[in-house]
Amino acid sequence: MTTISIIGAGNMATAIGTRAAKHGHTVELLSRNSAKAQSLADQIGNGTTVGTYGAKPAGDIVILAVLYTGAVDMVAQYGDALAGKILVDITNPFNADATGLMTTTGNSVSHQIATVAPDDAHVVKAINTIFGHVLAKDTPLDAFLAGDSAEAKAGVAAFLKSLDMQPLDAGGLEMAHALEWAGVLLMGVARNGAGFDVVLGAKSL
Amino acid sequence: MTTISIIGAGNMATAIGTRAAKHGHTVELLSRNSAKAQSLADQIGNGTTVGTYGAKPAGDIVILAVLYTGAVDMVAQYGDALAGKILVDITNPFNADATGLMTTTGNSVSHQIATVAPDDAHVVKAINTIFGHVLAKDTPLDAFLAGDSAEAKAGVAAFLKSLDMQPLDAGGLEMAHALEWAGVLLMGVARNGAGFDVVLGAKSL
Repeated sequence: MTTISIIGAGNMATAIGTRAAKHGHTVELLSRNSAKAQSLADQIGNGTTVGTYGAKPAGDIVILAVLYTGAVDMVAQYGDALAGKILVDITNPFNADATGLMTTTGNSVSHQIATVAPDDAHVVKAINTIFGHVLAKDTPLDAFLAGDSAEAKAGVAAFLKSLDMQPLDAGGLEMAHALEWAGVLLMGVARNGAGFDVVLGAKSL
Repeated sequence: MTTISIIGAGNMATAIGTRAAKHGHTVELLSRNSAKAQSLADQIGNGTTVGTYGAKPAGDIVILAVLYTGAVDMVAQYGDALAGKILVDITNPFNADATGLMTTTGNSVSHQIATVAPDDAHVVKAINTIFGHVLAKDTPLDAFLAGDSAEAKAGVAAFLKSLDMQPLDAGGLEMAHALEWAGVLLMGVARNGAGFDVVLGAKSL
């Protein structure tokens, strides 16, 4: 298995880190709040480490498990420390009541991250259509992804598969905005009868 | 069962009309091209009728099975003939390469239809996330819907259920744009590995 770096120590970092460790990956946690990261590393166990926030992450795949409001600035501040990395954008830039987005077509959070990231980093949008507590259940589910680098998407897809998640490639980075809208759709069905254990997916008939 | 009116005589009209007739509904077809409507009515059989285009449809539920480019003008031209009806907007206002939309937040095709429709008509977005040939297979599948009228949505949901389609309420009319983006997502996954027999859905874990 591989080393997965996760920037963040909140709910999504917990869910992804726990699921990744359970499936044999080595998890590295990175957070401005190193005490919180250490506490989460202890909780996850399985050799989970805490890295130095701002330094080059250990994993080839770096999951940006922070709120959308901070993700772009964080990547900009990291700068060249993210050179060559696959950056997984899991953010949902919801508007105030989660019926729409703060982003616009061609300017998804993924686009904004790609703009400030090192040239040889690759952004993949993924996992934003799954509630953290659903991810934490460790049951099989579908996971949409989008990005311009076929190689980076293959890497993320292999990681998702190793976690019993069925990757569904939606296309290039321009489709990241469609995934952000899928996050809105998820919230919509959850609040209108489906409940918050719901997950989006796709199947062939 | 109920009478369902379908405006249009193309692929989606064929798929919806065939599936509705198979499940015991009486189908009325309405088209500018009455010869095409009659030919489709003969194909569907089961008592399918052809109504007078522009006159009051027989069904309480009127499915607007036309391209998005013509849907708004058509509803405007119908005018008061659609008073009190549930108008089902199934359109996908894709951009040229179907990676985005011609509509914007707060101005989905459903919003535009609601603006020109009679005051006591109710617009429900639905069925736009299902390919016609997948709908025609008559296998169980999920169907998202959105609209402001709970009563109209209940009517559409009952109709969908009667066709072995699991209705998933996404919320008010503001969510119609999220459903339009879900149409984009469907195209994306279909073209990037999932294939064109794919259908979107949601399940509780």
